[in-house]
Amino acid sequence: MRQKLLLGGGVVAAILLLTAAPALAQDVDPYERFAEGSGDLAQTIVLDNIFIFIAGVLVFFMQAGFALVECGLTRAKNAANIFMKNLMDACLGVLVFAAVGWGIAYPGGDGGQFFGFAGFGIPGWDSFPDPAEVAAGGYPLGVSVDFFFQAAFAATAATIVSGAVAERTKFVGYLAYTVVITGLIYPIVVGWNWGGGWLSTLDTPFVDFAGSGLVHMVGGVAAFMGALALGPRIGKYGADGKPRAIPGHSIPLAITGVFILFIGWFGFNPGSELAADMAVPVIALLTLLAGMAGGTLAMATSWIVLKKPDVSMTGNGVLAGLVAICSGVGAMDPLGAIITGAVAGALVVLAVLFIERVVKVDDPVGASALHGVCGFWGLLATGLLATDDGLLMGGGADLFITQLIGGVAILAFVAVTAGILFFALKAAGILRVSAEDEMIGLDLTEHGAPGYGPDLLSESNPAAASTMASA
Amino acid sequence: MRQKLLLGGGVVAAILLLTAAPALAQDVDPYERFAEGSGDLAQTIVLDNIFIFIAGVLVFFMQAGFALVECGLTRAKNAANIFMKNLMDACLGVLVFAAVGWGIAYPGGDGGQFFGFAGFGIPGWDSFPDPAEVAAGGYPLGVSVDFFFQAAFAATAATIVSGAVAERTKFVGYLAYTVVITGLIYPIVVGWNWGGGWLSTLDTPFVDFAGSGLVHMVGGVAAFMGALALGPRIGKYGADGKPRAIPGHSIPLAITGVFILFIGWFGFNPGSELAADMAVPVIALLTLLAGMAGGTLAMATSWIVLKKPDVSMTGNGVLAGLVAICSGVGAMDPLGAIITGAVAGALVVLAVLFIERVVKVDDPVGASALHGVCGFWGLLATGLLATDDGLLMGGGADLFITQLIGGVAILAFVAVTAGILFFALKAAGILRVSAEDEMIGLDLTEHGAPGYGPDLLSESNPAAASTMASA
Amino acid sequence: MRQKLLLGGGVVAAILLLTAAPALAQDVDPYERFAEGSGDLAQTIVLDNIFIFIAGVLVFFMQAGFALVECGLTRAKNAANIFMKNLMDACLGVLVFAAVGWGIAYPGGDGGQFFGFAGFGIPGWDSFPDPAEVAAGGYPLGVSVDFFFQAAFAATAATIVSGAVAERTKFVGYLAYTVVITGLIYPIVVGWNWGGGWLSTLDTPFVDFAGSGLVHMVGGVAAFMGALALGPRIGKYGADGKPRAIPGHSIPLAITGVFILFIGWFGFNPGSELAADMAVPVIALLTLLAGMAGGTLAMATSWIVLKKPDVSMTGNGVLAGLVAICSGVGAMDPLGAIITGAVAGALVVLAVLFIERVVKVDDPVGASALHGVCGFWGLLATGLLATDDGLLMGGGADLFITQLIGGVAILAFVAVTAGILFFALKAAGILRVSAEDEMIGLDLTEHGAPGYGPDLLSESNPAAASTMASA
Repeated sequence: MRQKLLLGGGVVAAILLLTAAPALAQDVDPYERFAEGSGDLAQTIVLDNIFIFIAGVLVFFMQAGFALVECGLTRAKNAANIFMKNLMDACLGVLVFAAVGWGIAYPGGDGGQFFGFAGFGIPGWDSFPDPAEVAAGGYPLGVSVDFFFQAAFAATAATIVSGAVAERTKFVGYLAYTVVITGLIYPIVVGWNWGGGWLSTLDTPFVDFAGSGLVHMVGGVAAFMGALALGPRIGKYGADGKPRAIPGHSIPLAITGVFILFIGWFGFNPGSELAADMAVPVIALLTLLAGMAGGTLAMATSWIVLKKPDVSMTGNGVLAGLVAICSGVGAMDPLGAIITGAVAGALVVLAVLFIERVVKVDDPVGASALHGVCGFWGLLATGLLATDDGLLMGGGADLFITQLIGGVAILAFVAVTAGILFFALKAAGILRVSAEDEMIGLDLTEHGAPGYGPDLLSESNPAAASTMASA
Repeated sequence: MRQKLLLGGGVVAAILLLTAAPALAQDVDPYERFAEGSGDLAQTIVLDNIFIFIAGVLVFFMQAGFALVECGLTRAKNAANIFMKNLMDACLGVLVFAAVGWGIAYPGGDGGQFFGFAGFGIPGWDSFPDPAEVAAGGYPLGVSVDFFFQAAFAATAATIVSGAVAERTKFVGYLAYTVVITGLIYPIVVGWNWGGGWLSTLDTPFVDFAGSGLVHMVGGVAAFMGALALGPRIGKYGADGKPRAIPGHSIPLAITGVFILFIGWFGFNPGSELAADMAVPVIALLTLLAGMAGGTLAMATSWIVLKKPDVSMTGNGVLAGLVAICSGVGAMDPLGAIITGAVAGALVVLAVLFIERVVKVDDPVGASALHGVCGFWGLLATGLLATDDGLLMGGGADLFITQLIGGVAILAFVAVTAGILFFALKAAGILRVSAEDEMIGLDLTEHGAPGYGPDLLSESNPAAASTMASA
Repeated sequence: MRQKLLLGGGVVAAILLLTAAPALAQDVDPYERFAEGSGDLAQTIVLDNIFIFIAGVLVFFMQAGFALVECGLTRAKNAANIFMKNLMDACLGVLVFAAVGWGIAYPGGDGGQFFGFAGFGIPGWDSFPDPAEVAAGGYPLGVSVDFFFQAAFAATAATIVSGAVAERTKFVGYLAYTVVITGLIYPIVVGWNWGGGWLSTLDTPFVDFAGSGLVHMVGGVAAFMGALALGPRIGKYGADGKPRAIPGHSIPLAITGVFILFIGWFGFNPGSELAADMAVPVIALLTLLAGMAGGTLAMATSWIVLKKPDVSMTGNGVLAGLVAICSGVGAMDPLGAIITGAVAGALVVLAVLFIERVVKVDDPVGASALHGVCGFWGLLATGLLATDDGLLMGGGADLFITQLIGGVAILAFVAVTAGILFFALKAAGILRVSAEDEMIGLDLTEHGAPGYGPDLLSESNPAAASTMASA
């Protein structure tokens, strides 16, 4: 009986791909077809700036999504600590990115191939583009909105690590990590491509439209290094070395977080067009299809591997599709987006289990698999499926090789720098809480108050006593 | 004493209507007063497409709202299953709508009066309107954003059923239902009106601006048929046939969901203008007034009928006002919107109780009453209150008759097709879980993991033990 | 050891300010630099109206944020009551503001210096600006969107009180308060400045761009008066007069609310520009920096004062920065915004403790401190830090004196009127519930159903029984 169900899930997914795919594919190049809205240039500039502001708001909303996902997938005794970390990596992250990160990420004329620095702060925060310069092909955004949007990305890169190091990291160590990643590691990698560095000046330039590599892989690799340096939570691995499940405390919170991230992604990807033009809705469409395919395939994969359609795996699958499509969303067609997302959805399930069971690194929410592995897959998927120069689309191997080089470079750089950071924090004794504190929970030991009141339907709550359970 | 409070609630509502209404009414026709922004046409088109994209994002956000409402109003042992269903009806729903539903809903030149099919997939996904054609009265949206917005609607129609069939439906049966409603039932009904079919070609055309009928009634009637085919949850009706309350597990989650749906509705209704013109803010205003009137009257009605102002009924009242105003939001004035919403708010309370106590169909969240009954009321309200041709506005009975015909046709078609679907699933043995599984809860039996961790303030949680209850 | 951590927090914050501040400061006046987008005027008007509609949606989203913050910081037995109050102050608040408040807030030509009334309802709800008049410097918004945006503000002012009077207020008394504040108190204060009254006609006009004073102080002072009239919750103060902590029941809900409010503020402040021009992204930037500085300093302050970095205090700190920047966000530079927010973050922690321990008024969520004290600080901060005429910026004392006068006037007016209101409700016996009801909880006694089901992981839940705690 279960076999049938299992089969059913797979068949549904297969039919979908087979039915939808051929009809969706088109022999066109999304890049060439869209031009800036013509007309009065001042108006075009205003709309561009307003739109990117709105997109930035959506990206900031992702902070709530990350906090909810991480909180829901971990234990109640650490719930407040999770939210505090997410709150502070946004607060500190934005301020540090303003102070130093911005100048490193976008060094402008001062940029070298691997590192540049335009200075502290947000110079020209009140300056706006000159319509004449935009008419001549110049950049349409003012510094204020450009910083606003990029600061939201920096906060995203920072917050990805939170879940991987959950339930055992000292709060002060997390603050130190936040300062380094938003002030140094993330901005340097961004400088390599979006800031005009070596990845953007290769013969076949690197393609990472919205940051499968520059944002998600950076966060995901740092997450892995953090979890590695910390070691597993107490009780995660038995004496036989086998992992034990440590269930999270609230799927409703976790999947609400997935929905919020899904929504936020429509700022993340379409906003990365950095203009309000006709490419925006196409990017939105491909983002949608990739996410939905990711969720569908993750469901099917978990059904086959775990014997049941797993809810948190399916939620991670939606996010995996979204992570993977970031890179190629400006270069693919709907079929490519569906394949990219579907593979990511299957991949995230397998990668989570591989990291837990084989690598034996304890990443409570699967951030390494989701952002690291699927981020890398996103880079490669662009090299395979870009309509113009993807390897599988008859475009030759040049782009694929660039994507591979870029991915390996990011992996190596972040693994080394984040590794040094986390092991240095460990050596300094400010990385991991004591075993006693870990058992009690970080809400009480790090922040002095529980995340949940004792009255939440305990016997002391008259509401619980006066109505009978109907379950 | 309680009598006074009760009276107070009624008086407050009455005063509001009396005070607000006359001053709000205006002798104007909202339709004629708004024209597309003139000026450069390419810019106008860009803004139209960007705006509808943003509206679509808001509609997708409603998925989170539905999940939260349904989860909060049902029991903790099924919380993960509720979120999984909402996640998958979005994932599968969008993919199926992309594969086949879109071609049925908007058949274009290939459309018949009752059914048409333009083909599989999303042909022309990368094409945009030609400014010259738009200048001649053509449609301003590109296919990408048009699909994006309509796919969000399809997912909404699908997800409405989730709550009505909660706590006892097999997950695989729910997947099957999702495929059929987003691929066939919903698109066919949409084709009747928005897709150019018979409802749009009547002498007095059907008016359903944002889908009181095409979206909400479709979902609501399917919800009723699903709940009917399933039968009530174990323990819902006693041996005497009287209903027993099965309380939900979290009002905070449920009403957070109501707030999110309220927000999402400002994509749903204003976005249905399908252009960024001056009608948008007027539609937003009428939507707001209808929702707020719905909440107020539902509160007053529940206070009178249930002796206390009921929270979940009030939340449903806000939604009822929003459901009902969808149809006529482009054709009414503020007074009409307030009346439409207020009647819906009272109606949803009475309809929930009627379906539970008299019809004896067990709909755990009241989806049949909310989307079905109030959706139908919305259609009729337009026939009564449209400023131009409403029956009560001196416009004659033509529009009212059309609305009635359209409503009955939707009701009949969906009742029959969804009825066949659900009873076929029942006959195939994949509709309802076993009694044992239902008692244990669907989180464990269908998905293999609980929705809430055992540490959420149970005795095993040190946070609970180390602080004392103050309640 | 703890000393070091504590030191670390302070140092991090200090470095940030020192590093970021000089580089961020610019010798410019944000007011003069931005002009309306030129080009076709009809298009400009359309974009203005669409943008303010979107901003209004974000402000309405704040209702969910307030509800979550208040619910999370209070006890589970009152959770449904909190949401019901937030739901109804939106519903009733919008309807009452439509009926009478709007005519008082914006009396137009009928306005006196201290009170004016343009009539009931929303006259001209369907009228739009004439491009010719806008070209001559006229107002670009239609009445519909203007009302929509301002109604969201009125609902915000109303909802601020909810948390301060939580856990002991009769629901009917809360409804009565809602009607008075949205129909009378708030509109009168708005009329003083935004409506063209005496604060706007002073020689040096009052500067309250988005409502540190007009919205937040009004709500915060009313909150204080409500809490004062009610008296403390049972058990809040011991026989020795010392306060006891009554912990909230869910930090995850509370901080999710903070994130949502943070997002909503990007409608609140940028939308207050009332046009889609190039000032919008600059306002967004300053709003962001102030909020993040507020969170950082509140964390550091709580760490020093309470010995641990407190999560709810840090959340309040983010909000404090956002409250305080509302006034001067159109008149400051980034350094000013960071200082304004940082001071507010420290201030809210100290003010919460002062009101609880010294004044001994029981405000369960700290609304008086957050909106009242930090709202007033925001007014003064503009007088000190406005780039043009701030006292510390070499602009003389005129603006500071105006801000002080305005703040004191709002404080006095609201304290007197809200005081009369709340003490009158008290005298009428409809302000506070009975001690017995308070002990049982307002969910059951006021609304007849608990906010949380008894099955949320109690022993009756099979999900809890069948999996073992791993904590």
